[in-house]
Amino acid sequence: MTNPQKGQEQEMFELYHFEAAANSMKPLLCLHEKGVDFVSRQLNQDGKRWEQYSDWFLKINPDGQVPVLVHDRHVIVESTVINEYIEDVFPGEVSLRPHDPCWRAQMRIWTKYVDEYVCPALTVIGANFATPFAQKIDKAEMEDVLSRIPLEGPRRKWETVSSTGYSEEEVADARRRLGVAVERAEKALSEHQWLAAPAYSLADVNAYSMISGTERVAPEALNEQAAPRVFEWLRTMDERPAVRQVLERYGRRPAPPRAA
Amino acid sequence: MTNPQKGQEQEMFELYHFEAAANSMKPLLCLHEKGVDFVSRQLNQDGKRWEQYSDWFLKINPDGQVPVLVHDRHVIVESTVINEYIEDVFPGEVSLRPHDPCWRAQMRIWTKYVDEYVCPALTVIGANFATPFAQKIDKAEMEDVLSRIPLEGPRRKWETVSSTGYSEEEVADARRRLGVAVERAEKALSEHQWLAAPAYSLADVNAYSMISGTERVAPEALNEQAAPRVFEWLRTMDERPAVRQVLERYGRRPAPPRAA
Repeated sequence: MTNPQKGQEQEMFELYHFEAAANSMKPLLCLHEKGVDFVSRQLNQDGKRWEQYSDWFLKINPDGQVPVLVHDRHVIVESTVINEYIEDVFPGEVSLRPHDPCWRAQMRIWTKYVDEYVCPALTVIGANFATPFAQKIDKAEMEDVLSRIPLEGPRRKWETVSSTGYSEEEVADARRRLGVAVERAEKALSEHQWLAAPAYSLADVNAYSMISGTERVAPEALNEQAAPRVFEWLRTMDERPAVRQVLERYGRRPAPPRAA
Repeated sequence: MTNPQKGQEQEMFELYHFEAAANSMKPLLCLHEKGVDFVSRQLNQDGKRWEQYSDWFLKINPDGQVPVLVHDRHVIVESTVINEYIEDVFPGEVSLRPHDPCWRAQMRIWTKYVDEYVCPALTVIGANFATPFAQKIDKAEMEDVLSRIPLEGPRRKWETVSSTGYSEEEVADARRRLGVAVERAEKALSEHQWLAAPAYSLADVNAYSMISGTERVAPEALNEQAAPRVFEWLRTMDERPAVRQVLERYGRRPAPPRAA
């Protein structure tokens, strides 16, 4: 990839990330859509785990959270903020923020909604799937890991996941909330071609990164009968060259085709 | 106030808001700092209540949430998004977003943190203070109000407040989380003059709007001994002409002087 703005004066962009899903996928997709050159630093590969809480990574982000963008000596955290930062630094040829301030506001309402409403629900569902794996982890290893998690949110999640798991009520409520979000997306896509606006934006990048696998983990919340427009939007997103590149390079495995 | 950008071609800005506190204070303060002309539409004055769930207001914001900025025919919701919108429309003479993208990212990390971590904790504490009032409301009135609240978050809050109230554990945890936030602010203010950066920004506007009354509702979390820099920052903020104007015009009552 080339950096269209900087020519030979390449600055160093490093992205610390997990495999291409959820919050890690957001900046991967933004960088690929914009054709910004960067160095990928993928954590937890080749059987490694918990690298986000290792000493070397905590020196980069003391919160122990991924993704992190390092631009020369500057460390930018929080995937949604990182994507706005990439836009600020490369307003460039490919803009993922609508020029019109009203549409730009709609974009931010969506990225905020994804962070505050969709992400916590998916976290519960994802953590619920992780419970059988987490309960098999050696107790001493788990205690050591828990003692290294700096933020209370992730620490509480792993405490829950590795002990009792989430209750049926909590998981059911998370699934219900995903259904609410899908309904909202279906309505939005009846009003304009993309999620927040007539043009493709960070709202699509961020929402797709979070929910592209939802039909598999919560088919009652996301299925083609209930949300035909969301399904069409997902299929259109699947075909974008940037999405294909990101999944090929950093995806866990080839994504299965969407249900017909 | 004059609009420095538009001269005689005034566009119509209307802000629907409650009294100057918390989320309503954010855009009030942003507009006053920037000297943007607007029409104030304050809800729940003169003994009225629940206007945010009235038919006339739900036509403006179907979510029943305040503040709302109406710019000509465009409706912008979410206080943090509104403030970014005001900056997008009036980049102007007074900028509340750092020009440098790195500091701008730090500003957004703070506004996000205020929304996702500080605001939910303050909501529990504020709602806890509202319980004695809410439990006196006529049952039929409360049921009618609850049936009109569109979003599940506020509806659940008022269900809790008007029945059992929050548990001691929930309130204690909210107070603890406020303490964590104050510590984070104290550390930030040891690194630069303002909350997110060397320059005054929307991070200060938003954080002050949320926590300026915290020393009264949660003195164990915010007091001058534990957080001298936060206290100095609050006093400096108190003296800003825009803050004084906003509190004079839209404050509940003259703010008492801060504890010495």
